[in-house]
Amino acid sequence: MSRPALIPEDDVIEGVYLCSQLDLPDLFGAAIEDQPGLRLYRPEDVPDPSRIRFALVWRPAPDAFEAYPNIELVQVIAAGVDGVLRNPSLPDRAVVTRVHDDEQAAIMAGFAAWHVVWHHRQMGNYLAAQKDATWDRTTIKTLRPPSQVTVGVLGYGLMGRTIATTVATMGFRVLAATRTDGPSDDGITRVSGDDAVQQVAAQSDILINVLPLTPSTHDILNADLFAQMPKGAALVQLGRGQHLVEDDLLAALDSGQIGGASLDVFRSEPLPADHPFWTHPLVVVTPHEASVTSPKAVTDALVRSVLEMDAGQRPTAAVDKTTGY
Amino acid sequence: MSRPALIPEDDVIEGVYLCSQLDLPDLFGAAIEDQPGLRLYRPEDVPDPSRIRFALVWRPAPDAFEAYPNIELVQVIAAGVDGVLRNPSLPDRAVVTRVHDDEQAAIMAGFAAWHVVWHHRQMGNYLAAQKDATWDRTTIKTLRPPSQVTVGVLGYGLMGRTIATTVATMGFRVLAATRTDGPSDDGITRVSGDDAVQQVAAQSDILINVLPLTPSTHDILNADLFAQMPKGAALVQLGRGQHLVEDDLLAALDSGQIGGASLDVFRSEPLPADHPFWTHPLVVVTPHEASVTSPKAVTDALVRSVLEMDAGQRPTAAVDKTTGY
Repeated sequence: MSRPALIPEDDVIEGVYLCSQLDLPDLFGAAIEDQPGLRLYRPEDVPDPSRIRFALVWRPAPDAFEAYPNIELVQVIAAGVDGVLRNPSLPDRAVVTRVHDDEQAAIMAGFAAWHVVWHHRQMGNYLAAQKDATWDRTTIKTLRPPSQVTVGVLGYGLMGRTIATTVATMGFRVLAATRTDGPSDDGITRVSGDDAVQQVAAQSDILINVLPLTPSTHDILNADLFAQMPKGAALVQLGRGQHLVEDDLLAALDSGQIGGASLDVFRSEPLPADHPFWTHPLVVVTPHEASVTSPKAVTDALVRSVLEMDAGQRPTAAVDKTTGY
Repeated sequence: MSRPALIPEDDVIEGVYLCSQLDLPDLFGAAIEDQPGLRLYRPEDVPDPSRIRFALVWRPAPDAFEAYPNIELVQVIAAGVDGVLRNPSLPDRAVVTRVHDDEQAAIMAGFAAWHVVWHHRQMGNYLAAQKDATWDRTTIKTLRPPSQVTVGVLGYGLMGRTIATTVATMGFRVLAATRTDGPSDDGITRVSGDDAVQQVAAQSDILINVLPLTPSTHDILNADLFAQMPKGAALVQLGRGQHLVEDDLLAALDSGQIGGASLDVFRSEPLPADHPFWTHPLVVVTPHEASVTSPKAVTDALVRSVLEMDAGQRPTAAVDKTTGY
């Protein structure tokens, strides 16, 4: 069944893995080998760089694209493409595509829901009470009904929509911030426009960030935004580390303006061992594991994009390089 | 505006608070005073016991109903009515009604979702890693996609439906066990019949119990059921303490048959300080606070049931005393 790797056939579309930090061939090779008509090489195995028409990438090196003059398509293995768009060797002509994965969005929604309930119900108090074998039935007496608690979701793509729908099912008032007008789902109020983030934050008792990282969202979670939020609000930060001005959050936590934070992404990852987030009593730290794309979703996305490209169409999953998502 | 309490008018329907453990007049008095046509007394203030036609109750004493020969309606302040149905002084003629509260169901759904994610994602590992300032990105590598994880919900009333819908939005495969046939919601497979609980448990990686307590569900979470479940499955017990054979769960946890448990209700409450659940590393204990009914929902339910009763109708929220829910 398998063909010799160095003698490509004319009807085979050739691509290359370009990655650091992850072994993409190890993760995706088996699934991609099952796809007729596609061949993916490690850079060191590429027989003819001029025949390479697409790349599957994760955090490619700054010069990663230089060797391939005819790359038309760059498939990122996740939802966020900010790093690839900033890559200095990315050819202008190359279309960048990302993964839209329902399962990834569902995993993210469960993770977000967990943190919403963590802050709403002060679940940490229960865990602490258990350590002391203390049966304390006072927490529920001060519970604000979810219908009176506003959860804001920054970003309303596949991730934001799935999170918002889950949280709405749990009875919360849900606002979603998005730049563009359009329909919203049941139980969700969509807020659009250039100041959508500020409008939503100003009303949010719990604010979930899943924005794409773009020049206009860089540093968007800052002291000004925190000052507009209801006093004691909580932040659930699942976007990119560069969205958050970390010192501003620490100051807002210390002043009581922000009452708690769940942080999955950081400006520097791994989060340095001496970073104050690790030990802050109001902060939950997780190691950039809010969600994950499945090999199947990545493979499906890649095959679809390559076939669309080969047919002369703009891939459905193509990113707008101007807006960055 | 207020009328003297001891001179009821003819058009006023009179009732009595019958409760232990909670001060119902304190919780609901203000809301009920705003209702024209209804008057509720503490037992010691009742002017004429023969005029009392309804009771608002929470864990009434065994002889609580004896003094009131003409009680037609007994409104329970929560969703579970098992204690009242077992009350030896409950008159046969009295209709028992319970509260169907969307907000209570939503609060319960959020709590259940938190525990589902706790077990699915092993969230406790993240909290432990944070204590050690350890950036460990291995957890996600073994994450089972939610579409391959079955969550079973035992009970498909208002609570069960809301929980099941929330969990389905998070991408899990959801089965709901119910005795009766009928429609199910999007993304939920309804399993009905006398052995529905066993069928659902046998497939459930995470099993959530919100069954009503009846003679046929007493002790239903027992060694036999645990033995049928997938090895390492988790239990989220939000029903009644008497559903669970506690020693059977401890044995199943120790053998590894059950991999984790979240317990909100217990055979003896408060959970005794020396009970092994408090310190078990695989158990999360919460103090019967999974959810709560709001005074407004209770008042609305009471008013509706009393008006239906007064009009000679069977109250919509009436419980079937044979099935117990």
